[in-house]
Amino acid sequence: MNGVFVSVTTPETSTLREGAFGPATGLKCRECGATRELGPHYACYDCFGPLEIAYDFGTVTREQIEAGPANIWRYKALLPVPDDIESSPNLEPGFTRLLDARNLAAELGLAKLWVKDDSTNPTNSFKDRVVACALSAAREFGSKVFACPSTGNLANAVAAAGARAGIRTVVFIPSNLETPKQVNSAIFTENLIAVDGNYDDVNKLASEIAGEEDGWAFVNVNVRPFYAEGSKTLGYEIAEQLGWRLPDQIVIPVASGSQLTKVHKAFGELIALGLVEDKPYRVFGAQATGCNPVATAFKDGVDAIRPVRPDTIAKSLAIGNPADGIYVLDIARSTGGGVEEVDDEQIREGIVLLARTEGIFTETAGGTTVAVLKKLVETGQLDPELETVVINTGHGLKTLDAVSGSVGARATIAPTYDAFTAAGIA
Amino acid sequence: MNGVFVSVTTPETSTLREGAFGPATGLKCRECGATRELGPHYACYDCFGPLEIAYDFGTVTREQIEAGPANIWRYKALLPVPDDIESSPNLEPGFTRLLDARNLAAELGLAKLWVKDDSTNPTNSFKDRVVACALSAAREFGSKVFACPSTGNLANAVAAAGARAGIRTVVFIPSNLETPKQVNSAIFTENLIAVDGNYDDVNKLASEIAGEEDGWAFVNVNVRPFYAEGSKTLGYEIAEQLGWRLPDQIVIPVASGSQLTKVHKAFGELIALGLVEDKPYRVFGAQATGCNPVATAFKDGVDAIRPVRPDTIAKSLAIGNPADGIYVLDIARSTGGGVEEVDDEQIREGIVLLARTEGIFTETAGGTTVAVLKKLVETGQLDPELETVVINTGHGLKTLDAVSGSVGARATIAPTYDAFTAAGIA
Repeated sequence: MNGVFVSVTTPETSTLREGAFGPATGLKCRECGATRELGPHYACYDCFGPLEIAYDFGTVTREQIEAGPANIWRYKALLPVPDDIESSPNLEPGFTRLLDARNLAAELGLAKLWVKDDSTNPTNSFKDRVVACALSAAREFGSKVFACPSTGNLANAVAAAGARAGIRTVVFIPSNLETPKQVNSAIFTENLIAVDGNYDDVNKLASEIAGEEDGWAFVNVNVRPFYAEGSKTLGYEIAEQLGWRLPDQIVIPVASGSQLTKVHKAFGELIALGLVEDKPYRVFGAQATGCNPVATAFKDGVDAIRPVRPDTIAKSLAIGNPADGIYVLDIARSTGGGVEEVDDEQIREGIVLLARTEGIFTETAGGTTVAVLKKLVETGQLDPELETVVINTGHGLKTLDAVSGSVGARATIAPTYDAFTAAGIA
Repeated sequence: MNGVFVSVTTPETSTLREGAFGPATGLKCRECGATRELGPHYACYDCFGPLEIAYDFGTVTREQIEAGPANIWRYKALLPVPDDIESSPNLEPGFTRLLDARNLAAELGLAKLWVKDDSTNPTNSFKDRVVACALSAAREFGSKVFACPSTGNLANAVAAAGARAGIRTVVFIPSNLETPKQVNSAIFTENLIAVDGNYDDVNKLASEIAGEEDGWAFVNVNVRPFYAEGSKTLGYEIAEQLGWRLPDQIVIPVASGSQLTKVHKAFGELIALGLVEDKPYRVFGAQATGCNPVATAFKDGVDAIRPVRPDTIAKSLAIGNPADGIYVLDIARSTGGGVEEVDDEQIREGIVLLARTEGIFTETAGGTTVAVLKKLVETGQLDPELETVVINTGHGLKTLDAVSGSVGARATIAPTYDAFTAAGIA
């Protein structure tokens, strides 16, 4: 692998090199179980259900993982990537901090709380994990363009990863996106394309291009099965960083719902492989009241997700018709967890609470998750005596406007010691 | 250590606990060599020269370091911190990526280039390293307030680290600072104090408060000797991540000059301890033309640094009278390196170059360093055949304005496949 992408059309499976996807053996429909060969496919031929990666892991040991690099490739034996993945140019995301959150635990009355902080990833969100896996797939498929529709974090991650890999990137965004978010993608790519329309319009255009053009890898469309597996690494890292143990409770934000389902899948794989002890754990999902389709279905006790029109400051969670919503419901119910929601004011308070207690500046999605954690404790849905993990998925520098009206200077003084003492700061 | 600070005045040395500063044995004047006991002191009694930490390292092995955590505390045996430092609440900075920069190397015609990327630290700059060491010192001294004068990165790091440690923070900034930079500190602390004046006024006020008030630890004033040692970890990590080797050439930004001198010190310590093989290496400093006192002295072949009034977009490098400038000159000259400068337009180009080649969005300081690297190659000062490391010290999200006029959307299109094909993007 030398980082140069061959410009070919979507290949026949037979053109794939040996071991291109490591332990992955095929694609399998999550709904009907039908199988399909590995390729840039995302929907079942038979029932149009979502395809997932099927594996034959063989034996994987803790020692083997611990001997790997301090990034997600330490788990390459559990991902659809080749054995030489570390030598291909990528952003080397992951192995982010798991912080013992003593102050926040004390504030909320929890016995033991950890924050998994993904804001320190290369482009400052968990998206670097999934994009790294999508990039590997695009490389193996010989894709000539690495692309996505996005409003923020995903665009940053795709544009940056593609730049480093030396593959052409094309990133589609709604034309009314704020300038800072545009800059944070345009800095990496010459091909930031503004689309006159909302995110749904952009997304629809992306699907159309993926269907019409040869050799385009849209990370969250036609290589989505490979992409989504990257979120498993959050689960693997949490378990390893706890000393190869699972937590009792975990709180995860819900946009499409993919991350939550993949963390659950990761925990299941670790148990099946004997890498952690089998034990019960509860999975909780966090949504914003302005985009709460899964939380609503959970509370109503129904299986169907009714789509909503998003209206919340938590824009990275604003998916009104979440693809994996029904699987989130399943997992929350079967593990004894739940799905809860908080409003925009609570989200802002969540951001400030995490910053003031643990020194982490999270984006609105993280504010949502922390505020939901608080609400789960207050309403008795979460057991304060059990060990809990909360995931922070992104960085507050990307959503500054959400809190710029809430915090600021305490005082303005003249540059003299007298002014300092008069202000009563000491 | 439980994160609670005892509210006492600056203590007598006799009140310090056993092992409070690990291998550190005292303070030593860099100019006259006079020694002093460990304490919150920064200037020599005899000659007013800067004080540095003196150590007795004993034996330190690679295995001992490699068994440590994936943060700066893996090097605790080489820092003025206690052996139980990992158990005290801190931001756990460091062990950031060392990226094999193949694209940038090819662009510049270099045989081998690495980027040490400190933009992924907890508050997105190398300042988290130095602040973590200052925090440990403040804790051991029983300081009641953790403080700094700053215009940006340092304020973020102090406010965040103090929040997590549970110590009161007070951060002083010029009152005309941009709102985003204020938010990025105010999110962590109730005590962001705006001062009517420029940075020099703020700095002077901080020194006055440090002298008048008991128990205030100003990280870059009275605990500076401990604080500055944190930059050594950049040097340790580069060597370890290269497989316990030193590079042939290294390019480092110069503000006060402290970071460059400490990386050099780190390399020397590793050689002395037998952790890496002794070999020659060249150290290069990077400055902005709008604040170039050290680069000017280097070119003029003089020993004295003539202070300048800064006027550059690289605000985190804008120190007109750099405290360690003379030591930077010494090191650049004695190692066969140099000190070079670039103007604001070259800095902007450096930011875009690093982003487009390696997927790293750097702040203006990093743009300066990359642009200087380019200039050093072009002018033949740097040998393109030798293995080179360049340090990126901070994140572009903090200095968005520097490039928001330079990059943007390539096209704006209607949300249709026809519009897409008509735009010639495929």
